Amino acid sequence: MTKHSYQGIIPPIVTPLNADGSINYGDLERLVEHLIVSGVDGIFALGSTGQVAYLTDADRVAIVKAVSKAAAGRVPVIAGAIDLTAARIAEGARALVAAGADAIVATAPVYTINDEAEVADHFRLIQAGIDVPLFAYDIPVRVHRKLSAKLLVELGKEGVIVGVKDSSGDDVGFRRLIAMNEAAGHPLALFTGHEVVVDAMALIGADGAVPGLANVDAGAYVRLWAAAQAGRIDEAIAEQDYLNRLFEIVFCSTGRSGDAAGVGAFKAAMAEVGLLSSATMTAPIKPLDGATIDKIRAIVKDVGLVKRAA
Amino acid sequence: MTKHSYQGIIPPIVTPLNADGSINYGDLERLVEHLIVSGVDGIFALGSTGQVAYLTDADRVAIVKAVSKAAAGRVPVIAGAIDLTAARIAEGARALVAAGADAIVATAPVYTINDEAEVADHFRLIQAGIDVPLFAYDIPVRVHRKLSAKLLVELGKEGVIVGVKDSSGDDVGFRRLIAMNEAAGHPLALFTGHEVVVDAMALIGADGAVPGLANVDAGAYVRLWAAAQAGRIDEAIAEQDYLNRLFEIVFCSTGRSGDAAGVGAFKAAMAEVGLLSSATMTAPIKPLDGATIDKIRAIVKDVGLVKRAA
Amino acid sequence: MTKHSYQGIIPPIVTPLNADGSINYGDLERLVEHLIVSGVDGIFALGSTGQVAYLTDADRVAIVKAVSKAAAGRVPVIAGAIDLTAARIAEGARALVAAGADAIVATAPVYTINDEAEVADHFRLIQAGIDVPLFAYDIPVRVHRKLSAKLLVELGKEGVIVGVKDSSGDDVGFRRLIAMNEAAGHPLALFTGHEVVVDAMALIGADGAVPGLANVDAGAYVRLWAAAQAGRIDEAIAEQDYLNRLFEIVFCSTGRSGDAAGVGAFKAAMAEVGLLSSATMTAPIKPLDGATIDKIRAIVKDVGLVKRAA
Amino acid sequence: MTKHSYQGIIPPIVTPLNADGSINYGDLERLVEHLIVSGVDGIFALGSTGQVAYLTDADRVAIVKAVSKAAAGRVPVIAGAIDLTAARIAEGARALVAAGADAIVATAPVYTINDEAEVADHFRLIQAGIDVPLFAYDIPVRVHRKLSAKLLVELGKEGVIVGVKDSSGDDVGFRRLIAMNEAAGHPLALFTGHEVVVDAMALIGADGAVPGLANVDAGAYVRLWAAAQAGRIDEAIAEQDYLNRLFEIVFCSTGRSGDAAGVGAFKAAMAEVGLLSSATMTAPIKPLDGATIDKIRAIVKDVGLVKRAA
Repeated sequence: MTKHSYQGIIPPIVTPLNADGSINYGDLERLVEHLIVSGVDGIFALGSTGQVAYLTDADRVAIVKAVSKAAAGRVPVIAGAIDLTAARIAEGARALVAAGADAIVATAPVYTINDEAEVADHFRLIQAGIDVPLFAYDIPVRVHRKLSAKLLVELGKEGVIVGVKDSSGDDVGFRRLIAMNEAAGHPLALFTGHEVVVDAMALIGADGAVPGLANVDAGAYVRLWAAAQAGRIDEAIAEQDYLNRLFEIVFCSTGRSGDAAGVGAFKAAMAEVGLLSSATMTAPIKPLDGATIDKIRAIVKDVGLVKRAA
Repeated sequence: MTKHSYQGIIPPIVTPLNADGSINYGDLERLVEHLIVSGVDGIFALGSTGQVAYLTDADRVAIVKAVSKAAAGRVPVIAGAIDLTAARIAEGARALVAAGADAIVATAPVYTINDEAEVADHFRLIQAGIDVPLFAYDIPVRVHRKLSAKLLVELGKEGVIVGVKDSSGDDVGFRRLIAMNEAAGHPLALFTGHEVVVDAMALIGADGAVPGLANVDAGAYVRLWAAAQAGRIDEAIAEQDYLNRLFEIVFCSTGRSGDAAGVGAFKAAMAEVGLLSSATMTAPIKPLDGATIDKIRAIVKDVGLVKRAA
Repeated sequence: MTKHSYQGIIPPIVTPLNADGSINYGDLERLVEHLIVSGVDGIFALGSTGQVAYLTDADRVAIVKAVSKAAAGRVPVIAGAIDLTAARIAEGARALVAAGADAIVATAPVYTINDEAEVADHFRLIQAGIDVPLFAYDIPVRVHRKLSAKLLVELGKEGVIVGVKDSSGDDVGFRRLIAMNEAAGHPLALFTGHEVVVDAMALIGADGAVPGLANVDAGAYVRLWAAAQAGRIDEAIAEQDYLNRLFEIVFCSTGRSGDAAGVGAFKAAMAEVGLLSSATMTAPIKPLDGATIDKIRAIVKDVGLVKRAA
Repeated sequence: MTKHSYQGIIPPIVTPLNADGSINYGDLERLVEHLIVSGVDGIFALGSTGQVAYLTDADRVAIVKAVSKAAAGRVPVIAGAIDLTAARIAEGARALVAAGADAIVATAPVYTINDEAEVADHFRLIQAGIDVPLFAYDIPVRVHRKLSAKLLVELGKEGVIVGVKDSSGDDVGFRRLIAMNEAAGHPLALFTGHEVVVDAMALIGADGAVPGLANVDAGAYVRLWAAAQAGRIDEAIAEQDYLNRLFEIVFCSTGRSGDAAGVGAFKAAMAEVGLLSSATMTAPIKPLDGATIDKIRAIVKDVGLVKRAA
């Protein structure tokens, strides 16, 4: 499988839980099926939306096994090997590959205090420790470091990474990354991680998107992407505007943490439309309260998101 | 073993490596012996100075086994279970306890985006998953969150944590933590992690210190602490001033990362005086260059640090 | 003059200096004329690109007088009243209005530590102290605070501000601001301050742009904007791609401060094509070095930027 | 007046306001008299505690005139010339010196994006523009930059600055600054700006303190300082412990900004004991609420702070 297989809409799948906090594999398999039927181009398991940081290694392996089995080779399965540093990440990644992951996603080191040369070597060490394609995940809000366009394109030209998930919220940087990647012969598949700007990023040359909100409405992202690729700009913008009204669900809770508000809203909306049995999040994240759920429900209804048949 | 056993000088031991990057257990055992003979009150294995974040779980277990065996019950061995979140930390911690750790040190979650209530539950989950005392490690420069005095004392009163290693560099916060802890009946043993202010922190009521520089000269810290406890202020300050001149080794390198400059300086000075066979750091951290080593050597000589007999 | 007059390309004009650091009013007047002839929709004097923070109140007044006289009512002149807090800003703003400014731009407070309610009152105090339209300038990299979409639209609905210059680099936030502004009846004219994404921001509904790079090539931004407004997307993107290649001038210097690298590059390129007599920056910012100037010159030549007739 | 005159307790005096927000010069004069009678070694007007950032240039001049007249040469009057950059600061500073300031305090630039060489030149430009001693004010929480010990001692050796007010909360940095200053022949008078660690800072070699809380109880700080200088450590620590219990007033408010909570608490306590007619703060800072005032009153009573005779 080469990097050329990676483009389009690749949702960072949530990790469905039962009310007791255990993983709901039935829901997970049904969700994978639903996403593939909706037309997505891949599944990104164990991302931030999947609450990967809260999961043990054993749970991570089990999740990738389930996703991979459900995907059954129809679309690639990318898995997040999120850990502190290279040796640990590579070890975890090998287990995920054994469980069925077609590619691995890794961030810069966390907890450590490194310079850019060390971060480059970090990615080289990870890549040397695995035998599937590696994506860099640029998410400063969690990792507290921005990966520079220069570093990423250099790693791309070396063959260390095959793509980037950009969740940096830095549109200037992403634009420059696109230009530098193009000038270098397009070694990297560039994905935006931001739900609300997929239309604009498609127009300026992104290779795809990894939108958490696609858990709630994958079809709309698939249509948005197809329209943008076909040059039907107004249609792409209209789908994006619809999705952005839906995205307001993540702003419904007050006084809750970032992890609770975002994943909590996705799960609550998914439960509302029948995509999940429970909106439970991983401990120690407590459920959203009833008033917030009511606001989310109102938005879901207001934008006209259709419930799935049971 | 109760929390009352934890006080005084508890060095965060470096992880000695061979030139090829493998762990040098011979050096490690000799270093433990040297520290205990120097009079330290405990050993903190797998701290930031021990480059814990770069080590796999298997290496961590092996290190704690070696330290614990070498310590042979003469002083407590505290081990850092540094990972992303509670479930992972508790799992890792249980392996470290099985390997001989008498107590566990954990930070707030990293990578995740939590509020204070979730951080409190994070520590509660860890404590519920282990059966030895738990210390909170407050190190915002790595974790990007400050643990509030209110949170720490509350966890102390609940019995969730028995102490704090404060590496926050926030002396105002530490002073307030000392006062609130005192008002609550001293549930917490409070350690400063800052090498250069141990005299002052001792005077105002700290229970101990976890100084990385004690790897280089443990004896001076032991004398400093004894002097401060006995009210011999001038003597404590004089030892501190000596140590602070020695601490300048960490400012010798230019253009290197924080992880390289600090641990690299400690290891280089230790190699210089015969406490380590090699100053090698964990990958991807490259060695300090020759000019920096020369500067470190000059400081070591200038302050009069005596070489150990081979 | 109402807010409806504010749209399109409004360059944040540089402050031309003589080699001795004094203001070059001849250059300033010629630059205003050049920009207006190039088709810009307004002039923003005393922005970050104009190095406003380094200028005394007397110099600021003299600059606005010169710009206003040169503009001669053909386009509106917006002036940045950049100071610590509301009382100081309003006082400075009144002097700028007396000097000819048609509208005022102000940021959130700097130096102080305020909550959102205080920031809202800050803008209300400024607006109450002036009798021309007020724009909010959202520039967290300088002010160390992000203005929320909720706050800005609320101030727009109240009539406190008539528009926003968004230099936050937060495309997700800007997209949400556009949507909330639209839902509120478009009380605000929304400008992006980021040079390299004007095409995308135009497509998703921005009312205009305030690109520092327009000092170097205003015509290209005017054409880009016209193409985007007319729905000629490919043409807009092509102009943007050209401008982004030109924008690489700001990445030419190494080891220089942000203020030196950015404004320095604009001024060097302007001097190269005959738009400025000198690339001198305000003290204490020293000139870019020769090697950097050479790199900038090469880019200017490479992209084909045409020199003005003398 | 030389730098040798600057040592000991120099309170950053609050700016007393009437209930309508105008400056209460009667209160200001009485407060200066009270502080001098209490034994302080100088008055620092127009600091953060004096809410300098919210004051116009005219008000700043009037305040320095009033303080200087009330001090009548008994202690030096230091004034904060807080503005964006050097040219503006020097201009403002000259007005303050004309109004009676004996020395000037300035921070690193705000709003701008500078490197360390530019910050050094910033202080050189200010010093060249005034003819009284200049102090550097290190307050990263407001300026978003830390002044390095190396930079400060270099400026001291050059004669650019005569001292430092350290409000960085970085005790490690302050300890290193003390050592480097000593090694350089003590060119700088070093003051801590942190209320709760004056005992410890005195013991390790600080030249003085600028504690906002001294507005509420100057006498205790004067006694603390005298005890520390005389080597009566226990007495110094006891005074500090008392003051730290009193300092808890700044933690009484919930949900208020940093500027409101701190200065608001000082002013409320001062009003409670008869040192101020009103706890009013500068706009847009609203008063603390009644519940918070009650908590502050309880602390003031609990620690036994004696009311002044009217």
